[in-house]
Amino acid sequence: MKTVYCSILGFGAIGQGVAEVLLMKKEYLESIGLEVKVVAVVDSKGATVNPEGVDLADCLSRKMKDGTVAIEPISGVEVIRSIPHNLVIETTPTDIRTGGVGLQNMLAAFQTGKDVITSNKGPLTLKYRELMEAAKAAGSHFRFEATVGGSMPIINLANEVLAGNKIKSIKGILNGTCNYILTRMLEERASYNDILTESMQLGIAETDPTYDVEGIDTACKLVILANSIFGLDVTYNDVEVTGITKVTPEALEMAYERGHVIKLVGEVSRERIHVAPRLVPINHPLAVGGTLNVASIDTELAGEITVTGKGAGPIETASAILSDLVAIYGNG
Amino acid sequence: MKTVYCSILGFGAIGQGVAEVLLMKKEYLESIGLEVKVVAVVDSKGATVNPEGVDLADCLSRKMKDGTVAIEPISGVEVIRSIPHNLVIETTPTDIRTGGVGLQNMLAAFQTGKDVITSNKGPLTLKYRELMEAAKAAGSHFRFEATVGGSMPIINLANEVLAGNKIKSIKGILNGTCNYILTRMLEERASYNDILTESMQLGIAETDPTYDVEGIDTACKLVILANSIFGLDVTYNDVEVTGITKVTPEALEMAYERGHVIKLVGEVSRERIHVAPRLVPINHPLAVGGTLNVASIDTELAGEITVTGKGAGPIETASAILSDLVAIYGNG
Repeated sequence: MKTVYCSILGFGAIGQGVAEVLLMKKEYLESIGLEVKVVAVVDSKGATVNPEGVDLADCLSRKMKDGTVAIEPISGVEVIRSIPHNLVIETTPTDIRTGGVGLQNMLAAFQTGKDVITSNKGPLTLKYRELMEAAKAAGSHFRFEATVGGSMPIINLANEVLAGNKIKSIKGILNGTCNYILTRMLEERASYNDILTESMQLGIAETDPTYDVEGIDTACKLVILANSIFGLDVTYNDVEVTGITKVTPEALEMAYERGHVIKLVGEVSRERIHVAPRLVPINHPLAVGGTLNVASIDTELAGEITVTGKGAGPIETASAILSDLVAIYGNG
Repeated sequence: MKTVYCSILGFGAIGQGVAEVLLMKKEYLESIGLEVKVVAVVDSKGATVNPEGVDLADCLSRKMKDGTVAIEPISGVEVIRSIPHNLVIETTPTDIRTGGVGLQNMLAAFQTGKDVITSNKGPLTLKYRELMEAAKAAGSHFRFEATVGGSMPIINLANEVLAGNKIKSIKGILNGTCNYILTRMLEERASYNDILTESMQLGIAETDPTYDVEGIDTACKLVILANSIFGLDVTYNDVEVTGITKVTPEALEMAYERGHVIKLVGEVSRERIHVAPRLVPINHPLAVGGTLNVASIDTELAGEITVTGKGAGPIETASAILSDLVAIYGNG
């Protein structure tokens, strides 16, 4: 049995999902020879720490009851520097302007030779090259399947399963909120504002939906794909971005009559990275509805391979983090 | 640089595709530290053999010109037993009654400690357990992504990218010929027989289409998924099978008016394995047209993940073989 000591930095929906999945999959992990011990759970107010392993069920129930797991006033960076462990699971909120605390956590993790698995797009969007170099210098693993498409596997699919297959472009619907809004506008022949209100009431759109509906979230995901799959060195500023706020029900209806749907499509190739509402034929694999995410990978040998899945959700995202954990520690 | 010595047994469309892909990807393979030398190419008439590596371009042109690569009257099993090499790429035709020469080739490969990558469904459908045990006893790698869904990654996706995620069921369209016939019957409001004739003229259906249209091919693929992903021990006889020969244009049209298409769906779970024409909602990820293949993997944590791709074609299938080759030899 190999023991992996890890910290969970950030204990919002995704961090809690990770804790739940680690509890659920304890037996499975043991069956492949892994025991995962969480030495610290950190949220914005402080941390629960135990170098021999915290009680995750207790952390989850205290978070629910008190809104925090803080017992000691200690930050993620302090946990990284003071408690020996192998792996940092970084699930703090995305900040695409500065990289936020996530960027500091990741750099500190690599400086102390730890591996990092993250769902946090901000640091990867701003400082991909610097992070990869820090990981490489430290001999650390750095995986981030959860940053793009939630449970939908795309980075690991492109880099591992399709190994040897040159990828020409990736085209996809990478934001479930926009997909939901456009799907519902067509179904109800309703305006953007009406469906946006509905989406907020259902908790599908955030109170400030700018990040999703203006295409910023999709653009960040394209930056991560461009850097990690195409080997480019780009940031958010290299993406041409148009959101969905100007799409009308009339345009959706007219497209539909001609056999098309309008989707917010992000596309990345070596030549161009852009996000915009685009026409997709109804029977094309990209034409999926609701909050689904989808990505079509155009390959040199295998043609177009499309993968569809739930783009969000704490357990779904945590399952992508689990697959990264198994990929790092699972073989021997 | 690591040198992989391999044989190509079977030099029909897929074997030739493998040769073409090895020529095309020579530089890529070298970039990841691999040199692949083909010590023998075998077809039904004999073989071209050179322990230092045959000239693949010459084999391809002689096959085109003369219909064979036979220089020496030597069989696959004799190549396996007499020429030292690491890997057998087995692409002889599928025989689901006896396993055919493919079964003999695979067993001989394991007996002599060689790895096997195959696109041949027959032996896996009949003798999965025996083959896995022979591979294990020999310490050999045995991979067969190309047997299901051509270039569409499914076995490696389920077993590797989704590691840790319990799979509840897999539902899919795994036969491009049936998908083409049903798609065209609806588009043209034409009978099964008319579209079957069209498919044969286009080379999409074989002269004897039984294997495809009766659902046998789909059933064989389900057997492989059941054994390799669900860890079952089943054969073709454990599958309930209904083909598409009784589907009418009227039924397709009536379904369509109610927002559905009819597809030949294969489904495997721990409880049941069956193939039958089934209704699929038009905007469901499974509702793909033409000759595409698609599979929806229902997972415990990540929900439904769907993958779509070209189910056939020599280069597409060879690309799945290449991904298996890189998975075995690519890391150090």
